[in-house]
Amino acid sequence: MPKIPFLLPKVYTLIEPGAVVMVSTMFQGRPNIMTMSWHTMIDFTPPLLGLVIGDQSHTFRILKATGECVVNIPTAELIKKVVACGNTSGRTADKFKMFRFTAVKASRVKAPMIGECYANLECKVIDKRMAGQYNLFILEVVRAWTDPLKKSPRTIRHLGKGVFMTGGRRMKLSSKMK
Amino acid sequence: MPKIPFLLPKVYTLIEPGAVVMVSTMFQGRPNIMTMSWHTMIDFTPPLLGLVIGDQSHTFRILKATGECVVNIPTAELIKKVVACGNTSGRTADKFKMFRFTAVKASRVKAPMIGECYANLECKVIDKRMAGQYNLFILEVVRAWTDPLKKSPRTIRHLGKGVFMTGGRRMKLSSKMK
Repeated sequence: MPKIPFLLPKVYTLIEPGAVVMVSTMFQGRPNIMTMSWHTMIDFTPPLLGLVIGDQSHTFRILKATGECVVNIPTAELIKKVVACGNTSGRTADKFKMFRFTAVKASRVKAPMIGECYANLECKVIDKRMAGQYNLFILEVVRAWTDPLKKSPRTIRHLGKGVFMTGGRRMKLSSKMK
Repeated sequence: MPKIPFLLPKVYTLIEPGAVVMVSTMFQGRPNIMTMSWHTMIDFTPPLLGLVIGDQSHTFRILKATGECVVNIPTAELIKKVVACGNTSGRTADKFKMFRFTAVKASRVKAPMIGECYANLECKVIDKRMAGQYNLFILEVVRAWTDPLKKSPRTIRHLGKGVFMTGGRRMKLSSKMK
Protein backbone atom coordinates (compact mmCIF):
# COMPACT_ATOMS: atom_id res chain seq x y z
CA MET A 1 0.00 0.00 0.00
CA PRO A 2 1.51 3.34 -0.99
CA LYS A 3 1.71 5.98 1.70
CA ILE A 4 -0.23 9.20 1.60
CA PRO A 5 0.76 12.67 2.79
CA PHE A 6 -0.11 13.42 6.42
CA LEU A 7 -1.12 16.92 7.53
CA LEU A 8 1.82 18.68 9.19
CA PRO A 9 -0.19 20.23 12.08
CA LYS A 10 -1.18 16.69 13.08
CA VAL A 11 2.33 15.25 13.09
CA TYR A 12 2.44 15.47 16.92
CA THR A 13 -0.16 12.68 17.03
CA LEU A 14 2.31 10.33 15.28
CA ILE A 15 5.24 10.91 17.65
CA GLU A 16 4.07 9.07 20.74
CA PRO A 17 5.58 10.93 23.70
CA GLY A 18 7.08 9.55 26.90
CA ALA A 19 5.20 8.88 30.13
CA VAL A 20 2.91 11.61 31.43
CA VAL A 21 4.61 13.42 34.31
CA MET A 22 3.49 16.04 36.83
CA VAL A 23 5.81 18.97 37.34
CA SER A 24 5.44 20.46 40.83
CA THR A 25 6.78 23.88 41.76
CA MET A 26 6.73 26.39 44.65
CA PHE A 27 6.57 30.15 44.21
CA GLN A 28 6.01 32.76 46.89
CA GLY A 29 4.69 30.12 49.28
CA ARG A 30 2.21 28.68 46.77
CA PRO A 31 2.66 25.16 45.42
CA ASN A 32 1.56 24.25 41.89
CA ILE A 33 1.33 21.21 39.61
CA MET A 34 1.43 20.88 35.80
CA THR A 35 0.62 17.72 33.85
CA MET A 36 2.74 17.30 30.71
CA SER A 37 4.42 14.77 28.44
CA TRP A 38 6.76 16.60 26.07
CA HIS A 39 10.09 15.69 27.63
CA THR A 40 13.18 13.66 26.90
CA MET A 41 16.25 12.36 28.69
CA ILE A 42 19.31 14.23 27.48
CA ASP A 43 22.14 12.56 29.38
CA PHE A 44 22.71 9.63 31.75
CA THR A 45 25.18 11.01 34.35
CA PRO A 46 24.44 13.46 35.74
CA PRO A 47 20.89 12.76 34.61
CA LEU A 48 19.73 15.63 32.41
CA LEU A 49 16.16 16.14 31.27
CA GLY A 50 14.65 18.41 28.62
CA LEU A 51 11.15 19.71 29.40
CA VAL A 52 9.00 21.60 26.88
CA ILE A 53 6.62 23.83 28.86
CA GLY A 54 4.11 26.09 27.11
CA ASP A 55 5.06 29.73 27.63
CA GLN A 56 1.46 30.66 28.47
CA SER A 57 1.42 28.33 31.46
CA HIS A 58 1.83 29.32 35.08
CA THR A 59 4.62 26.73 35.46
CA PHE A 60 6.67 28.34 32.67
CA ARG A 61 6.89 31.59 34.63
CA ILE A 62 7.59 29.85 37.95
CA LEU A 63 10.32 27.68 36.46
CA LYS A 64 11.97 30.74 34.92
CA ALA A 65 11.79 32.60 38.23
CA THR A 66 12.80 29.84 40.66
CA GLY A 67 14.85 27.43 38.52
CA GLU A 68 13.52 24.48 40.54
CA CYS A 69 10.85 21.81 40.29
CA VAL A 70 10.06 18.17 41.00
CA VAL A 71 9.20 15.81 38.13
CA ASN A 72 6.70 13.34 39.60
CA ILE A 73 5.77 10.15 37.76
CA PRO A 74 2.18 8.99 38.32
CA THR A 75 0.83 5.50 37.65
CA ALA A 76 -2.39 4.45 35.94
CA GLU A 77 -4.47 4.36 39.16
CA LEU A 78 -4.16 8.17 39.30
CA ILE A 79 -5.15 8.85 35.68
CA LYS A 80 -8.40 10.75 36.39
CA LYS A 81 -6.74 13.13 38.85
CA VAL A 82 -3.70 13.52 36.59
CA VAL A 83 -5.84 14.55 33.61
CA ALA A 84 -8.14 16.76 35.69
CA CYS A 85 -5.04 18.48 37.02
CA GLY A 86 -3.95 19.10 33.41
CA ASN A 87 -7.31 20.74 32.69
CA THR A 88 -6.95 23.31 35.50
CA SER A 89 -4.71 26.36 35.75
CA GLY A 90 -2.64 26.90 38.89
CA ARG A 91 -3.09 30.65 38.57
CA THR A 92 -6.32 30.58 40.56
CA ALA A 93 -6.42 27.13 42.19
CA ASP A 94 -4.19 25.30 44.68
CA LYS A 95 -4.07 21.99 42.83
CA PHE A 96 -2.62 20.07 45.78
CA LYS A 97 -5.75 20.93 47.78
CA MET A 98 -8.19 20.71 44.89
CA PHE A 99 -7.09 17.19 43.86
CA ARG A 100 -6.04 16.03 47.35
CA PHE A 101 -2.43 15.37 46.50
CA THR A 102 -0.01 15.10 49.44
CA ALA A 103 2.81 17.65 49.38
CA VAL A 104 5.96 15.96 50.68
CA LYS A 105 9.03 18.05 51.52
CA ALA A 106 11.90 17.57 49.07
CA SER A 107 15.53 17.57 50.18
CA ARG A 108 17.34 19.68 47.57
CA VAL A 109 14.62 21.97 46.15
CA LYS A 110 11.81 24.07 47.63
CA ALA A 111 9.19 22.56 45.29
CA PRO A 112 7.09 19.89 47.03
CA MET A 113 7.02 16.27 45.86
CA ILE A 114 3.67 14.61 45.12
CA GLY A 115 3.39 11.78 47.64
CA GLU A 116 0.97 9.71 45.53
CA CYS A 117 3.37 9.45 42.55
CA TYR A 118 5.60 6.38 42.53
CA ALA A 119 8.76 8.34 41.66
CA ASN A 120 9.89 11.91 42.37
CA LEU A 121 12.85 13.60 40.70
CA GLU A 122 14.13 16.78 42.34
CA CYS A 123 15.39 19.01 39.54
CA LYS A 124 17.32 22.25 39.05
CA VAL A 125 17.20 24.19 35.79
CA ILE A 126 20.75 24.29 34.44
CA ASP A 127 20.01 25.97 31.09
CA LYS A 128 17.12 28.22 30.14
CA ARG A 129 18.68 29.70 27.01
CA MET A 130 16.18 27.74 24.85
CA ALA A 131 13.18 28.70 26.99
CA GLY A 132 12.48 31.82 24.94
CA GLN A 133 12.65 30.31 21.47
CA TYR A 134 11.53 26.71 22.06
CA ASN A 135 9.92 26.67 25.55
CA LEU A 136 12.68 24.18 26.35
CA PHE A 137 14.30 23.93 29.79
CA ILE A 138 17.32 21.72 30.50
CA LEU A 139 17.25 20.34 34.04
CA GLU A 140 19.59 18.27 36.14
CA VAL A 141 18.03 15.65 38.41
CA VAL A 142 19.81 16.28 41.73
CA ARG A 143 17.96 13.72 43.90
CA ALA A 144 15.54 10.91 43.04
CA TRP A 145 13.08 8.89 45.12
CA THR A 146 10.96 5.84 44.38
CA ASP A 147 8.47 3.63 46.13
CA PRO A 148 10.41 0.37 46.63
CA LEU A 149 7.21 -1.69 46.53
CA LYS A 150 6.27 -0.63 42.97
CA LYS A 151 8.33 -2.79 40.65
CA SER A 152 6.97 -2.52 37.10
CA PRO A 153 4.59 0.42 37.50
CA ARG A 154 2.06 1.10 34.75
CA THR A 155 2.70 4.64 33.59
CA ILE A 156 0.33 6.80 31.54
CA ARG A 157 0.93 8.00 27.99
CA HIS A 158 -0.97 10.72 26.13
CA LEU A 159 -1.51 10.01 22.44
CA GLY A 160 -3.16 13.38 21.78
CA LYS A 161 -6.72 14.70 21.94
CA GLY A 162 -7.58 13.06 25.25
CA VAL A 163 -6.60 9.53 24.18
CA PHE A 164 -4.44 7.95 26.88
CA MET A 165 -2.70 4.58 26.99
CA THR A 166 -1.48 2.56 29.95
CA GLY A 167 0.52 -0.62 30.27
CA GLY A 168 1.51 -2.88 27.41
CA ARG A 169 3.34 -6.12 26.79
CA ARG A 170 6.97 -6.20 27.95
CA MET A 171 9.68 -8.26 26.30
CA LYS A 172 13.43 -8.63 26.73
CA LEU A 173 15.64 -8.55 23.65
CA SER A 174 19.39 -8.59 23.35
CA SER A 175 20.26 -4.91 23.01
CA LYS A 176 23.46 -2.90 23.21
CA MET A 177 21.36 0.10 24.15
CA LYS A 178 21.75 1.12 27.80
CA MET B 1 5.27 3.22 52.33
CA PRO B 2 8.06 5.80 52.58
CA LYS B 3 10.15 6.32 49.47
CA ILE B 4 13.80 5.50 49.26
CA PRO B 5 16.58 7.29 47.34
CA PHE B 6 17.12 6.08 43.80
CA LEU B 7 20.57 6.00 42.20
CA LEU B 8 21.05 9.00 39.91
CA PRO B 9 22.79 7.09 37.06
CA LYS B 10 19.68 4.90 36.83
CA VAL B 11 17.16 7.74 36.64
CA TYR B 12 16.87 7.24 32.86
CA THR B 13 15.08 3.95 33.55
CA LEU B 14 12.30 5.85 35.37
CA ILE B 15 11.59 8.35 32.58
CA GLU B 16 9.86 6.18 30.03
CA PRO B 17 10.74 7.62 26.63
CA GLY B 18 8.55 8.04 23.56
CA ALA B 19 8.13 5.53 20.76
CA VAL B 20 11.28 3.99 19.29
CA VAL B 21 12.05 5.64 15.94
CA MET B 22 14.54 4.93 13.18
CA VAL B 23 16.47 7.92 11.88
CA SER B 24 17.55 7.42 8.27
CA THR B 25 20.21 9.55 6.60
CA MET B 26 22.21 9.75 3.35
CA PHE B 27 25.84 10.83 3.14
CA GLN B 28 28.14 10.61 0.12
CA GLY B 29 25.80 8.17 -1.58
CA ARG B 30 25.57 5.84 1.44
CA PRO B 31 22.29 5.43 3.31
CA ASN B 32 22.25 4.74 7.04
CA ILE B 33 19.75 4.01 9.83
CA MET B 34 19.89 4.66 13.59
CA THR B 35 17.44 3.28 16.15
CA MET B 36 16.75 5.69 19.03
CA SER B 37 14.12 6.89 21.47
CA TRP B 38 15.36 10.05 23.20
CA HIS B 39 13.23 12.61 21.40
CA THR B 40 10.39 15.03 22.08
CA MET B 41 7.94 17.17 20.16
CA ILE B 42 8.85 20.83 20.64
CA ASP B 43 6.12 22.63 18.72
CA PHE B 44 2.88 21.87 16.85
CA THR B 45 3.04 24.14 13.77
CA PRO B 46 5.40 23.97 12.08
CA PRO B 47 6.05 20.61 13.72
CA LEU B 48 9.40 20.79 15.53
CA LEU B 49 11.20 17.81 17.00
CA GLY B 50 14.13 17.53 19.38
CA LEU B 51 16.40 14.52 18.83
CA VAL B 52 19.19 13.53 21.24
CA ILE B 53 21.82 11.64 19.23
CA GLY B 54 24.99 10.28 20.84
CA ASP B 55 28.03 12.18 19.58
CA GLN B 56 29.96 8.94 19.06
CA SER B 57 27.41 7.69 16.54
CA HIS B 58 27.74 7.73 12.78
CA THR B 59 24.36 9.49 12.51
CA PHE B 60 25.55 12.39 14.70
CA ARG B 61 28.27 13.24 12.19
CA ILE B 62 26.00 12.79 9.16
CA LEU B 63 23.26 14.95 10.67
CA LYS B 64 25.77 17.69 11.43
CA ALA B 65 27.16 17.51 7.90
CA THR B 66 23.94 17.18 5.87
CA GLY B 67 21.27 18.74 8.12
CA GLU B 68 18.70 16.24 6.82
CA CYS B 69 17.10 12.98 7.88
CA VAL B 70 13.87 11.02 7.92
CA VAL B 71 12.30 9.99 11.23
CA ASN B 72 10.63 6.64 10.55
CA ILE B 73 8.17 5.11 13.01
CA PRO B 74 8.20 1.30 13.12
CA THR B 75 5.46 -0.91 14.55
CA ALA B 76 5.74 -3.94 16.83
CA GLU B 77 5.93 -6.47 13.94
CA LEU B 78 9.38 -5.06 13.09
CA ILE B 79 10.80 -5.16 16.64
CA LYS B 80 13.55 -7.73 16.03
CA LYS B 81 14.92 -5.88 13.00
CA VAL B 82 14.59 -2.53 14.76
CA VAL B 83 16.62 -3.70 17.76
CA ALA B 84 19.19 -5.55 15.63
CA CYS B 85 19.60 -2.34 13.64
CA GLY B 86 20.27 -0.51 16.91
CA ASN B 87 23.01 -3.03 17.76
CA THR B 88 24.94 -2.40 14.52
CA SER B 89 27.04 0.58 13.49
CA GLY B 90 26.49 2.13 10.08
CA ARG B 91 30.18 2.91 9.79
CA THR B 92 30.92 -0.47 8.26
CA ALA B 93 27.51 -1.89 7.28
CA ASP B 94 24.77 -0.81 4.89
CA LYS B 95 21.86 -1.37 7.24
CA PHE B 96 19.22 -1.12 4.51
CA LYS B 97 20.81 -4.14 2.78
CA MET B 98 21.75 -5.98 5.97
CA PHE B 99 18.23 -5.85 7.43
CA ARG B 100 16.35 -5.83 4.10
CA PHE B 101 14.66 -2.49 4.61
CA THR B 102 13.25 -0.83 1.49
CA ALA B 103 14.73 2.60 0.74
CA VAL B 104 11.93 4.81 -0.63
CA LYS B 105 12.78 8.16 -2.21
CA ALA B 106 11.70 11.13 -0.10
CA SER B 107 10.37 14.33 -1.64
CA ARG B 108 12.08 17.12 0.31
CA VAL B 109 15.30 15.53 1.64
CA LYS B 110 17.99 13.28 0.19
CA ALA B 111 17.74 10.78 3.06
CA PRO B 112 15.71 7.72 2.11
CA MET B 113 12.47 6.73 3.86
CA ILE B 114 12.12 3.21 5.31
CA GLY B 115 9.25 1.66 3.38
CA GLU B 116 8.36 -0.87 6.10
CA CYS B 117 7.71 1.82 8.75
CA TYR B 118 4.10 2.98 9.04
CA ALA B 119 5.01 6.68 9.15
CA ASN B 120 7.88 8.71 7.69
CA LEU B 121 8.71 12.28 8.65
CA GLU B 122 11.06 14.16 6.33
CA CYS B 123 13.09 16.51 8.52
CA LYS B 124 15.55 19.38 8.20
CA VAL B 125 17.82 20.44 11.05
CA ILE B 126 16.93 24.03 11.91
CA ASP B 127 19.16 24.43 14.97
CA LYS B 128 22.33 22.57 15.87
CA ARG B 129 23.61 25.02 18.48
CA MET B 130 22.83 22.48 21.24
CA ALA B 131 24.47 19.57 19.36
CA GLY B 132 27.88 20.24 20.90
CA GLN B 133 26.84 20.55 24.53
CA TYR B 134 23.76 18.30 24.72
CA ASN B 135 23.82 16.16 21.52
CA LEU B 136 20.47 17.84 20.84
CA PHE B 137 19.27 18.68 17.32
CA ILE B 138 16.13 20.72 16.63
CA LEU B 139 14.41 19.62 13.42
CA GLU B 140 11.44 20.81 11.43
CA VAL B 141 9.22 18.16 9.87
CA VAL B 142 8.82 19.43 6.30
CA ARG B 143 6.76 16.54 4.87
CA ALA B 144 5.02 13.57 6.52
CA TRP B 145 3.67 10.29 5.13
CA THR B 146 1.61 7.51 6.67
CA ASP B 147 0.16 4.18 5.65
CA PRO B 148 -3.60 4.92 5.48
CA LEU B 149 -4.47 1.32 6.36
CA LYS B 150 -2.73 1.37 9.75
CA LYS B 151 -5.13 3.06 12.12
CA SER B 152 -4.00 2.48 15.72
CA PRO B 153 -0.52 1.09 15.13
CA ARG B 154 1.30 -0.60 18.00
CA THR B 155 4.55 1.28 18.43
CA ILE B 156 7.60 0.07 20.35
CA ARG B 157 8.98 1.62 23.54
CA HIS B 158 12.38 0.99 25.11
CA LEU B 159 12.34 0.92 28.91
CA GLY B 160 16.11 0.53 29.17
CA LYS B 161 18.52 -2.43 29.25
CA GLY B 162 16.84 -4.32 26.44
CA VAL B 163 13.34 -4.30 27.94
CA PHE B 164 10.82 -3.23 25.31
CA MET B 165 7.08 -2.62 25.57
CA THR B 166 4.42 -2.63 22.87
CA GLY B 167 0.75 -1.77 22.86
CA GLY B 168 -1.35 -1.04 25.92
CA ARG B 169 -4.91 -0.18 26.88
CA ARG B 170 -6.31 2.98 25.29
CA MET B 171 -8.92 5.18 26.92
CA LYS B 172 -10.55 8.51 26.13
CA LEU B 173 -10.80 11.14 28.85
CA SER B 174 -12.02 14.69 28.67
CA SER B 175 -8.83 16.69 28.24
CA LYS B 176 -8.01 20.26 27.30
CA MET B 177 -4.63 19.04 26.10
CA LYS B 178 -4.27 19.07 22.33
